[in-house]
Amino acid sequence: MTIMLPVKIAGLGWYLPEKRVTNADLEACLGIPAPWIERVTGVQERRYCTYETAAQMGATAARMALEMADIDVRDVDVIIGASTTQQQAIPCTAVFVQRELAAPEGRSTCFDINATCLSFLFALQTAAHLVAAGVYRTILIYSSEQGSRSLNPAQRESAVLFGDAAAAAVITRSQEGETSALWHSHFRTFHSGAELTQVVGGGTLHHPNDPTTTPEMNLFHMSGPAVFKQASLQSGPFLEEFFAGLDWSRASIDAVVPHQASRHAVELLSSRLGFCREQIVWNLAQRGNCIAASIPLTLAEAVHSGRIQRGQRILLVGTGAGLTLGALALTF
Amino acid sequence: MTIMLPVKIAGLGWYLPEKRVTNADLEACLGIPAPWIERVTGVQERRYCTYETAAQMGATAARMALEMADIDVRDVDVIIGASTTQQQAIPCTAVFVQRELAAPEGRSTCFDINATCLSFLFALQTAAHLVAAGVYRTILIYSSEQGSRSLNPAQRESAVLFGDAAAAAVITRSQEGETSALWHSHFRTFHSGAELTQVVGGGTLHHPNDPTTTPEMNLFHMSGPAVFKQASLQSGPFLEEFFAGLDWSRASIDAVVPHQASRHAVELLSSRLGFCREQIVWNLAQRGNCIAASIPLTLAEAVHSGRIQRGQRILLVGTGAGLTLGALALTF
Repeated sequence: MTIMLPVKIAGLGWYLPEKRVTNADLEACLGIPAPWIERVTGVQERRYCTYETAAQMGATAARMALEMADIDVRDVDVIIGASTTQQQAIPCTAVFVQRELAAPEGRSTCFDINATCLSFLFALQTAAHLVAAGVYRTILIYSSEQGSRSLNPAQRESAVLFGDAAAAAVITRSQEGETSALWHSHFRTFHSGAELTQVVGGGTLHHPNDPTTTPEMNLFHMSGPAVFKQASLQSGPFLEEFFAGLDWSRASIDAVVPHQASRHAVELLSSRLGFCREQIVWNLAQRGNCIAASIPLTLAEAVHSGRIQRGQRILLVGTGAGLTLGALALTF
Repeated sequence: MTIMLPVKIAGLGWYLPEKRVTNADLEACLGIPAPWIERVTGVQERRYCTYETAAQMGATAARMALEMADIDVRDVDVIIGASTTQQQAIPCTAVFVQRELAAPEGRSTCFDINATCLSFLFALQTAAHLVAAGVYRTILIYSSEQGSRSLNPAQRESAVLFGDAAAAAVITRSQEGETSALWHSHFRTFHSGAELTQVVGGGTLHHPNDPTTTPEMNLFHMSGPAVFKQASLQSGPFLEEFFAGLDWSRASIDAVVPHQASRHAVELLSSRLGFCREQIVWNLAQRGNCIAASIPLTLAEAVHSGRIQRGQRILLVGTGAGLTLGALALTF
């Protein structure tokens, strides 16, 4: 069922850490051939944070998004942190973004939503309903990821795939005469994929202070080929369900903004899932897989470059650890 | 502004770890006098998990909630994990609850919401809007906390305050003739309180593998008196704002279900915030402060004991690390 929500992404912004890491850099330090990296992952370079904290990155992206939206930070009602990697265990990272932004305390409230790579999509669905219902006027969502802290040099593919980045979006009600709207979202989780992408440490199961917790438990474990197999098996039926609830044809979509999971994952959209190459927006080669920041970063860069315009039909789509599949249709 | 959402808490359940820890037990192992513990915190005993995982605890609570709601696990559309302590860094814990429940994979989707002690209130607000808008029919929220893993023996008050528990709620649309509804929710975050309750480890700032990360960083740091001071300063104006948006008098509320933060925090409601002692539901003495599980556990126990009945006016209220204040009014 299509439920039109009269909300718009009023502003988008991003932040990229200063440190640029090329495939040659990784070949030099990990011994993984640069041509192999590009062929298998599709990534040519990515950024790694050094001095930047997750909250600083998120706040910088948020300032750019607020500027585009022409909204003062004092008018933000809610800050949603939509990230996988948290800055610290308690409190939630959005609180530190409120501080970094110098947002007046007590004016807004803060919480985090985590569905790994799809965190931004779940946060956007939540924000759109809260704004459409009139509970809040202005919601700031940011995704700030520092996957580089947990790279596993023993795993060739994931060690070179990820990049760090932050991106942010400001959600408001569409004004009269504006066509911006959120039309439909759809999610499905398959727990048989839970072990295919995981960091088993960092929680109560293997607490950092537990003497049986090994350093390796605090690093990424990803079975790229198995994730790709499960995702490609499920994506077809998932998108059929999605489009059954949406009055749009695939061809009518102006831009498909996928999670930049890997070269093969993004190519699947045109090779087997019914989209044209021209519809699909890429930033994988320069950014890597930026986990939850990937979708909003790709969207933000495409909007600021002019690739995506107001009034166009946009599909945000991807997979996240879980395995979860997600898709969201909006008129930008 | 009051926005009535025709949704109900169709079922509630909980799980308490088997291991019961009395103040005498803590005196024996930590050297903190049992009478001091009860006087300062109000806690007489609490549970600590041993063999139980966070997902197992959450799933057991969820099964009880589904049974009360008379809803089959196959009919759950969304599972929201509303907890502070995650089971592992990736993927989100709700995925593991989907598995523990033997919920058919691909039928539901999973994500986590984290606002420490107020996670359940934010999740309830989100779930209520998604159900009221017709996006989903049945949403399962669970909070499963294992704060005992991060207790800091160097901090007398927090070391004895927390207990482990899980609680769950099933959210559906109210049927014709049912008075159940969610009326109003309100939240405010004050980042000047961010350092008053924190675990600075467990994230990217002090990664578990970082050689500068000390074991102490992975434990609770709570300045109880400072939190109490900030909370008591802000609670009055916060509740004035809350009631300004709600057509209920304080006296018309049948049960106030507070976060069981501490004896002094709960007593504030009757001593300075305008409620009668008879309105307030306690379980602090037997349960301790169960972080995000505290509010839904207190509510669930009160409903199953008959203290709270269908059709009654309920106020859920509390504070969480941030510092965040939250309140939510519903007709049960």
